[in-house]
Parts: sequence; structure tokens; C-alpha cells
Amino acid sequence: MASEKCFAKGSSAPGLVAKGQIRLYSMRFCPFAHRTRLVLHAKGIKHDTVNINLKDKPEWFLKKNPLGLVPTLETSSGQVIYESPITCDYLDEVYTDKKLLPADPFQKAQQKMMLENFSRVTPYFYKIPMGKKNGEDISVLEGELKEKFVKLNEDLVNKKFFGGNAITMIDYMMWPWFERLEIFELKHCLDGTPELKKWTEHMSEDQTVKATMFPTETNKAFYKTYADGKPNYDYGL
Amino acid sequence: MASEKCFAKGSSAPGLVAKGQIRLYSMRFCPFAHRTRLVLHAKGIKHDTVNINLKDKPEWFLKKNPLGLVPTLETSSGQVIYESPITCDYLDEVYTDKKLLPADPFQKAQQKMMLENFSRVTPYFYKIPMGKKNGEDISVLEGELKEKFVKLNEDLVNKKFFGGNAITMIDYMMWPWFERLEIFELKHCLDGTPELKKWTEHMSEDQTVKATMFPTETNKAFYKTYADGKPNYDYGL
Repeated sequence: MASEKCFAKGSSAPGLVAKGQIRLYSMRFCPFAHRTRLVLHAKGIKHDTVNINLKDKPEWFLKKNPLGLVPTLETSSGQVIYESPITCDYLDEVYTDKKLLPADPFQKAQQKMMLENFSRVTPYFYKIPMGKKNGEDISVLEGELKEKFVKLNEDLVNKKFFGGNAITMIDYMMWPWFERLEIFELKHCLDGTPELKKWTEHMSEDQTVKATMFPTETNKAFYKTYADGKPNYDYGL
Repeated sequence: MASEKCFAKGSSAPGLVAKGQIRLYSMRFCPFAHRTRLVLHAKGIKHDTVNINLKDKPEWFLKKNPLGLVPTLETSSGQVIYESPITCDYLDEVYTDKKLLPADPFQKAQQKMMLENFSRVTPYFYKIPMGKKNGEDISVLEGELKEKFVKLNEDLVNKKFFGGNAITMIDYMMWPWFERLEIFELKHCLDGTPELKKWTEHMSEDQTVKATMFPTETNKAFYKTYADGKPNYDYGL
């Protein structure tokens, strides 16, 4: 799964999606696609994965999704779904085993509000490493990120996970960026937020997290090629 | 409904939310809060409305929602829900009469993708009038907006509304900005998109749209105070 070389411009389209399966268009190191990979794994959904060269996208992929985004899902009847939270909610609705979103409307709304707040956190994971690379002073940005972590830490008081004492959707929605903390050299930002740090430890023990994870060295090596403007999407294959 | 003067800093908090009701914190002219007003009305949900002075927010309101956003919902048990699409989905889940979101997971995902796309349209409704006010050349921005309208127009071919032949959630999510087209002096942008224009006409005939609408002159007069940096939230009361 997700171990195949990426398809680029000029490639032939992969075959049809098998009946009773779903296909994920992905990029092995993309944190947004990682969300969908986590949900597919956690729910045990039968699927295949087609990796996309995001710098040089196949024409046939742009026909399926003119925005050219990953993650994109395709069903065997040709339905196309994109935007990571939309793909994950879709999977949770269609595949009713091991529900990841709470059934209670308020608890579901809480997860959506946390996700919305978290969308204001993710930009720091790019801005800080890029600023550092460009020799800028990143202390203000790091301070802001730490403040956001304090807020997340508060959400975890008396709870093991963001939705309670078991992993739910919101944990998988946030995890991909925390898995990459070391790569972005931001691990020290957790020092003042012990509950959040503990959460990353609990998450690391999850079978799904383990199964969809790349070794830090692989992630780091890919990230270097990415930061240098020449992403090697097939790194390690 | 929604006809009361706004609460500002220093005001006393309104009373508790009545049992069996829900409360909307709103601002009469806010297009995001308008989404929730539309859903409350369309579903016939018993509620009260507390308008907020967004330039000078009450302390008690910031305690309920530290982000200080409208729309915010509050239940009689003190649950607080914010972000307009989250408030609307919550209402549609809790109040099961007259469902606005489709039950089919793919159709629901389609509405969410349309909404995501539409979030890239709304900024033009601010950038163009503000650019014009500042004497800038807005022709490029208007061209971009027209292109986005062409895309929306395509979604409406062979359909009366965005979700099919009846009004559903996605129509109410988009409507507030179209109701304000004239105020923003952008009505001519519909000239090349006849299906979209027809949609605005169909929407104008909807009872909920009519019931939650302010007269164009009132909207215009408020908008003038807003653009001048001195929003008169109680205009017309």
C-alpha cells in the first residue's frame, strides 16, 4: 500500500477501480493525504493507492480532479471526492464499521471546531522551516506556535485524546503534522505543553499510526529534496 | 427575530437560553450569520437572536466564545457552536425535520466540495468594493470573479438549484453573498452566466430567503457605514 512509484505527466492512466474497492490518489509524504491514509487503515477499508507527481501532474489525473489535489478518492462508479476532511468524513459515512466521528451532533461539531482551529496551526509547520532556511529570525513565529500548542494542551486536560479516551477522527486529522515535528526541527516546541507531548506518545503507539508512518530518516530526506525545490516523490522506493 | 439592538462592551449579558430553544448570536448584516439565519428559518427552529456589536464586543460574549465570532449558537444546556457551516450542519443534525443536507454520503461530499470552492469566491465580494473605494483598477479582480461565476454556472446546467431541483443546504450557504451583489455593485458580473442569474431569481422567490432579507436600501446604507469604518449595526432599528 502506498509504496508505488508516482505517476507523472505523460503517464498512462491506471486501470479502473476494482468493484468493491476505493482508490486513493496520494503523495507518499503529503500530510493531507496522510489523513486519508490513516482513516483508510483505521477502518480497514479495501483500497488501492495511486501516487501522483505533484510537480508534474498526469493529464488523466487533472481530468478527474481539475484542481489536481491529493488526497482524492475515486469509487468504482467513478465518483471523485477531494479535500482531506471531506474524504475522511465520506469514508466514515460509507464504511460504517469502526466509526471515527462521534454520533452526537454537539461532539461532532466540537471536532469540526477543533479542526477549524487547527487549520490555523498547520501554516507554521511550513513558515518556520522556510524562514529558518532563508536565514530569517523565526523566534516570533515559534512563540506563536507555542501559544497555539498551549491552547491544544488545554483541550487535552483530563483526556488522553482530543475526543476523549479513545482515538477519534480529530486525532487522525492532526497527527500528520506532529509526526513531522522532528523533521521540521520543532520538537522542542512541545516542551511547555506536557499533555500534548503525552498525546504524541499515545498516538505513536497506535497500530494505524505505526502502519502508515515512514521512518523519520526517510521523511527527513524527502523533506530536504522538497525544501530544495526538487521533491523526490519516490524517495526510498 | 434579529430585530433587536446589538449588545456592546459593558452591556449586561442576556438571560439564559429558554428550555427547548436555541440562541443565535448574530450581527444583522453579517453574511456568515445570514447562513445560520436562513437554516433556522427554513427548518422552523424555535430560537432567539442576540445581536453583537462586532467592533466593541461584550465581555460576557468573549467568555462564551473567545474568538468572538458570529454566528455562534448556544443551547439551553450551555453548549456553544461556531463557524457558520458547523452551526448549520449542527442544526440540520439536531432538528431532523426538513433535512437540508442530502442523506447520500457522495451527494453530501459534493455539497462540501462546492462550499470549499465557494470559500475562494467570497473574498472578491470584499476586495472589489474596497479596491474601487481606494481608486484602484479592479478590472483584473472582476475578471477573476466572472471566471468563478462561469464555474458556478456550469454546476447549474440542467438543475434549478446547486443540489438538484429543490433548495438544499449549499444554496443557503452561497445565497448571502448573492443577495448583496447589488450593494457591492457587482450585479453586472452575472451577465455572462445565465444559469447562475436564473438561480438568483429562483432563490429570491423562496419564503425563507424573503423572510430573512433586508431591503437593499437598508443593506446599502449599513454597508456604507461599514466601508467608512464606522459600522452602524443598529441601522434601521
